[in-house]
Amino acid sequence: MKILVTGAGGMIGRKLVERLVADKTLGGKPITALTLVDVVESPIPAGAPKDTKPIVTDFSEPGVSTTLIAERPDVIFHLAAIVSGDAEANFEKGYKINFNGSWSLFEAIRLEGQSSPYKPRFVFASSLAVIGPPFPDPVPDEFAPTPSTSYGTQKAMTELMLADYSRKGFLDGVGVRLPTICIRPGKPNKAASSFFSGILREPLAGQEAPLPVGDEVRHWFASPRAAVGFFITAATIDTSSLGVRRSMTMPGVSATVGEQIEALRKAAGDKAVALIKRVDDPFVSQIVKGWAGRYDAKQAASLGFKAEKNFDEIIKVYQEDEMAQ
Amino acid sequence: MKILVTGAGGMIGRKLVERLVADKTLGGKPITALTLVDVVESPIPAGAPKDTKPIVTDFSEPGVSTTLIAERPDVIFHLAAIVSGDAEANFEKGYKINFNGSWSLFEAIRLEGQSSPYKPRFVFASSLAVIGPPFPDPVPDEFAPTPSTSYGTQKAMTELMLADYSRKGFLDGVGVRLPTICIRPGKPNKAASSFFSGILREPLAGQEAPLPVGDEVRHWFASPRAAVGFFITAATIDTSSLGVRRSMTMPGVSATVGEQIEALRKAAGDKAVALIKRVDDPFVSQIVKGWAGRYDAKQAASLGFKAEKNFDEIIKVYQEDEMAQ
Repeated sequence: MKILVTGAGGMIGRKLVERLVADKTLGGKPITALTLVDVVESPIPAGAPKDTKPIVTDFSEPGVSTTLIAERPDVIFHLAAIVSGDAEANFEKGYKINFNGSWSLFEAIRLEGQSSPYKPRFVFASSLAVIGPPFPDPVPDEFAPTPSTSYGTQKAMTELMLADYSRKGFLDGVGVRLPTICIRPGKPNKAASSFFSGILREPLAGQEAPLPVGDEVRHWFASPRAAVGFFITAATIDTSSLGVRRSMTMPGVSATVGEQIEALRKAAGDKAVALIKRVDDPFVSQIVKGWAGRYDAKQAASLGFKAEKNFDEIIKVYQEDEMAQ
Repeated sequence: MKILVTGAGGMIGRKLVERLVADKTLGGKPITALTLVDVVESPIPAGAPKDTKPIVTDFSEPGVSTTLIAERPDVIFHLAAIVSGDAEANFEKGYKINFNGSWSLFEAIRLEGQSSPYKPRFVFASSLAVIGPPFPDPVPDEFAPTPSTSYGTQKAMTELMLADYSRKGFLDGVGVRLPTICIRPGKPNKAASSFFSGILREPLAGQEAPLPVGDEVRHWFASPRAAVGFFITAATIDTSSLGVRRSMTMPGVSATVGEQIEALRKAAGDKAVALIKRVDDPFVSQIVKGWAGRYDAKQAASLGFKAEKNFDEIIKVYQEDEMAQ
């Protein structure tokens, strides 16, 4: 089985590739080739199949998708994208990479299938940024995407196209709407959501962390390990019952900042909690109000997609996957 | 005020232009120029402003949108599209015209606005084909579009883009999801929905009409006159409260075939009803099952969009607008 991963150099992309290499199989079939695409060099984990190649390229440039698809990967994990802030600040670039780039992959697949049958599983990393306020609590699967960013718009448009190309039989698509990933390893970044990881990650390392919002703020989370699991599940589920409902909200843990803090207290004590410094930030608070705190991810749950059950588990995953090293 | 109409040669386009010419104003401002675009020659109604020009062109061809937008129309009615069956049979053509063509208009507007401020009202003819089964009854405004055709996909993608370009301030968009238009003047066509008009239009003219489905089939209707009203309303409403919810299901009459027939009986008697010939067509029945029969068009109703109240009114509109001539 040949696998193509775009965005293979990113945080989730690297973890997905590590998991594929460790598993050696996908859906019971041996993985024989891995093509790892990113604008930066993708690391190759030890034990990767011989036919593993990192390709440094921009998949949204003309012809690149055709070249990648000419190798007829059986499964495509399409994670490459520019992030929300970048797509908002750079309108043309966002549409070019996040939308036209994805379309160019779909088109390359459709055209490849015209010479002889070809219908790969296409796993698309979508985002809950497709959902915009005002929303009910919890947000049901059937709630109309009305994104409040260009990034969310590009993801929602790609979801629609993924469904249409699937309906027409050109590919077998599954869209995975990721919750906010927590605890992200590494350093704080400029994302408005950065603090959700920071208030746990930094205290667990004995460092102070700023908290820009109130304890009552509720959000939707899954661990990096769960995110990798979503992609593996998306690559292996039976899609025959999906119809055109190809993109799904992933299960997650709905937790308030206060609940995050209590989970930290259980895991690392009052001393860790004391490292959280309350620094109100009305700008961040305002952005966070535009995000839903709870989803009813029925369709995904019924298909076997699994997240953690609570924040204790999310912290435990971080300790096992990041701190044990 | 300058107005651009794409699809000005079509049935609704022609009626919209006639209404604009009769009104002489739009939203209280005198109409000074009309540009009427279609792949066929658009008729110019008597009394049209001096600066009225029909342009025979395909707006999806490179450069055409830029030329049309260079004249800086204040209001754009974008009705041009290829129909559902054509878009389903011709995959590339559907995306090129219905999606890329619309995008090229949005892009031309955005780029035109870079030299000096320009933000036209953009009224987009969308479709209830964005909604796919299974659906609740009635279908609420917040129900997620999961189109079951490429045509519906292209309309849904354009809706998303219309909202994003509006949010960014490049244009001021309103999307109008039209109900099935009834009674269509003229002859039966190959659309699966053709009989909804045929079973009234033909008997009103003393001719037989086939009925391929059962009396219990429920559908969502508005007259051509109401459709024109939707576009006029969309061009003149205050959009400040819409946020990113720019595309709306239009109000309509929910009626069963049986209720249509009873309205015909009231208008033209048993003799007219006797001209309806039941000819079961499982193929048409199957397609029609994929369409919702009732929508809760709350947002549009609250903004003043108005359809007929019942089928008696729909028949009366046909008699006044088509049979009186």
